[in-house]
Amino acid sequence: MQSVLDYLTAHRARFEEELCEYLRLPSVSAQTDHDCDTRATADWLMKHCRAIGLKARKHTTDFHPIVTASTPKRAGRRPHFLVYGHYDVQPPDPLEEWDTPPFEPTIRKGAVYARGATDNKGQHFAHLKAVEAFLQTGSELPCDLTFVIEGEEEVGSESLVKFLRQKKKDLQCDAVVVSDTGMPSKKHPALTYSLRGVTALEVTVRGPKADLHSGIYGGSVDNPALVLCQMLAALRDKRGRIAVPGFYDRAQKLTRYEREQMKRLPISAAQYRRLLGVKALFGEMGYTHHEQRSARPTLEINGLTSGYQGEGSKTIVPAWASAKITCRLVPNQDPCEINRLLKRQLKKLCPPSVKLEIEDGHGAEAYHVPPTGPQAQVALEALREAFGHEPVILREGGSIPIINEFKKVLGADSLLLGLALPDDNLHSPNEKFDLDCFHNGAEMSARLWPKLAAI
Amino acid sequence: MQSVLDYLTAHRARFEEELCEYLRLPSVSAQTDHDCDTRATADWLMKHCRAIGLKARKHTTDFHPIVTASTPKRAGRRPHFLVYGHYDVQPPDPLEEWDTPPFEPTIRKGAVYARGATDNKGQHFAHLKAVEAFLQTGSELPCDLTFVIEGEEEVGSESLVKFLRQKKKDLQCDAVVVSDTGMPSKKHPALTYSLRGVTALEVTVRGPKADLHSGIYGGSVDNPALVLCQMLAALRDKRGRIAVPGFYDRAQKLTRYEREQMKRLPISAAQYRRLLGVKALFGEMGYTHHEQRSARPTLEINGLTSGYQGEGSKTIVPAWASAKITCRLVPNQDPCEINRLLKRQLKKLCPPSVKLEIEDGHGAEAYHVPPTGPQAQVALEALREAFGHEPVILREGGSIPIINEFKKVLGADSLLLGLALPDDNLHSPNEKFDLDCFHNGAEMSARLWPKLAAI
Repeated sequence: MQSVLDYLTAHRARFEEELCEYLRLPSVSAQTDHDCDTRATADWLMKHCRAIGLKARKHTTDFHPIVTASTPKRAGRRPHFLVYGHYDVQPPDPLEEWDTPPFEPTIRKGAVYARGATDNKGQHFAHLKAVEAFLQTGSELPCDLTFVIEGEEEVGSESLVKFLRQKKKDLQCDAVVVSDTGMPSKKHPALTYSLRGVTALEVTVRGPKADLHSGIYGGSVDNPALVLCQMLAALRDKRGRIAVPGFYDRAQKLTRYEREQMKRLPISAAQYRRLLGVKALFGEMGYTHHEQRSARPTLEINGLTSGYQGEGSKTIVPAWASAKITCRLVPNQDPCEINRLLKRQLKKLCPPSVKLEIEDGHGAEAYHVPPTGPQAQVALEALREAFGHEPVILREGGSIPIINEFKKVLGADSLLLGLALPDDNLHSPNEKFDLDCFHNGAEMSARLWPKLAAI
Repeated sequence: MQSVLDYLTAHRARFEEELCEYLRLPSVSAQTDHDCDTRATADWLMKHCRAIGLKARKHTTDFHPIVTASTPKRAGRRPHFLVYGHYDVQPPDPLEEWDTPPFEPTIRKGAVYARGATDNKGQHFAHLKAVEAFLQTGSELPCDLTFVIEGEEEVGSESLVKFLRQKKKDLQCDAVVVSDTGMPSKKHPALTYSLRGVTALEVTVRGPKADLHSGIYGGSVDNPALVLCQMLAALRDKRGRIAVPGFYDRAQKLTRYEREQMKRLPISAAQYRRLLGVKALFGEMGYTHHEQRSARPTLEINGLTSGYQGEGSKTIVPAWASAKITCRLVPNQDPCEINRLLKRQLKKLCPPSVKLEIEDGHGAEAYHVPPTGPQAQVALEALREAFGHEPVILREGGSIPIINEFKKVLGADSLLLGLALPDDNLHSPNEKFDLDCFHNGAEMSARLWPKLAAI
């Protein structure tokens, strides 16, 4: 292992140069005028993987190619792990807000600035450098590794989902390692072990057949906007609890261990309040803001629409009113069931004076791997050793849909070992990737494989 | 009086031709490319008034001219009445929905079809024909009359309000007669004796400084759209009562006489429900739909805006949410006081997690002249004699701001003797004016003056 670590230290400057080369390629998956660049990026990646000793292939899909790269075949059966990443990046707009051009990587203050630096080229590149160290120093890698780097993460990963099903046999594995999440600070390396799910719907209440003059008709006909407000208002109580019968029944509870661990997270409630710019925080009573935003289910109105929205006033009873609603879900809550419970409650709350229409939106299950499991524990060890700080365990409030696919199609759990810092500006101008995170990430990866293989 | 009535009968065909000539002038006050037409209409009207024996003048204003026309000065003091009307009309769009062009008046099925036919050229022209009958037959008119016909009713009557103040002395009068409202049917000639007032405001609640990712932050920060819904929901109870303390304190109650009279109105609740196209009617309990829409105050949400309103879903906690609100008010409710009560209640309902902003809109007082008063009673007599049916008394749900100005500036009550039928399409394509309403309206006007003068 020492020769692997020495190699990683010795070649830091070259690794940074190579990362800059990779970042120079504008692989914007959402913009078709960048399709050539996206293909060129896949080619560059494939060649790079081959150069460091991996067996790499580019797989064409209906849209952007997928690059796979495996450690050389050897005799005997070893544990097999996937490393997932994506070489596509978000559009760089608005360009005028970048201090240096998005596709001219610049190193300053210990970070590389470029679109895709942290999301996700820098993060999976760290893992490539770790495997390079094993291969180039002739060190024994006690497991087989397959990198799966897609080009459609920023546009929905449609091709990858098909690819997983097609290559299900080749991709059977003992775990998927993903560095595409974050850590609270460089002193808080993190394992993310849980993600929230989601269910969405749109509710419309319809009253009169057209907007009515509020002077001539108002008072004798219900107001759909007020009806909608009254229905939605009844979905949450004063203690911040969702008032939908059955909503919390299956929701996984936080363990004492998790709540203890959460207390170690930086960012106090006061700091968090200032960050969001709100007068006061508000959430389900009995939980901290860290718990509320990651480990508790929610119901949010994402949008409201009714009647006249222009300047001044228009004295109407609007014909209809609608709201977009999403619920964030925690492990064991079934998106379909919650959707059903919510619809049942809305129907119950709807008065006879209006017609109710509900349109279903997307849904995704929550994801959870117990942080006390053996893989999670060795991942925490690797983080501790590489970063020199006691790692934290994180739940994330959002979803990473592909993680559910790894579980569903391959039956594999994912270890989310994210290297992004809170101020990395992912999806924003001046995206960066901290070089300590890069090099410590590579070390963490190198330390991880022997530990994982030994379980 | 008989010679006056005979004159009206004898000249019906000519009156209709003259009305068509008047309607041919496209006096669209809102459109500056019609400014020439608007001036030409004022000129035509002034000349016509002179031709029938009135002393007419055109008064230039900052915008469209006002035409006044008075009965010739005679020795002795007589009661003085104003007749108010407006020669300007709504824009005719959408043109393609007219069966015959809006400014080519056409008579079919006993009605004249043209923009402005019922709103308001036809209605005040009926009054002009009545006075013509007196003047041309040499019949004694027992009062002095001044017609005040403005050209800005459809754009806010700004010049007329100034004019009333300037000419306050000349315009002192015993009542203003206005035919610019409606009657439920030709068998239900009507006196409108009460109009609702209005107060408007816009409420905005602000949460985080920008829209937040509902996955990353949702649950730990309040949702401004949900807060707004909860605040607005609390403004009305299940019985349809406005839940703002003090809201009803000063509201004038319906008398037993009024409620008895309201029962005579045509249009059953079932017919009304079908007309509006709602599943079920809803209003304040204990009142009929006629009472709810005209004699009871209301609180309406006219518009709701928050977050994402496009296609599909966007998983955000919106930064803010806003609602446009208007209250219709009944006599004795002060718009400023109700506005203040409403703001106080909104502030009370607002939780500490959001910032509340309230912007005041327009306001207008309700209008009321007891239908049992002597002027109202003789107006009902004139209606009964001219239409051959027992008249009804109406409250209207909307406001006619100029009526409040007549009261405020001149101290004069208005008698609202509207000649429009419910299907006259005012402000819509295929506007019409029923010729029976026109001729009976002229007779009603002729019968009215001796009765009013005799009080």
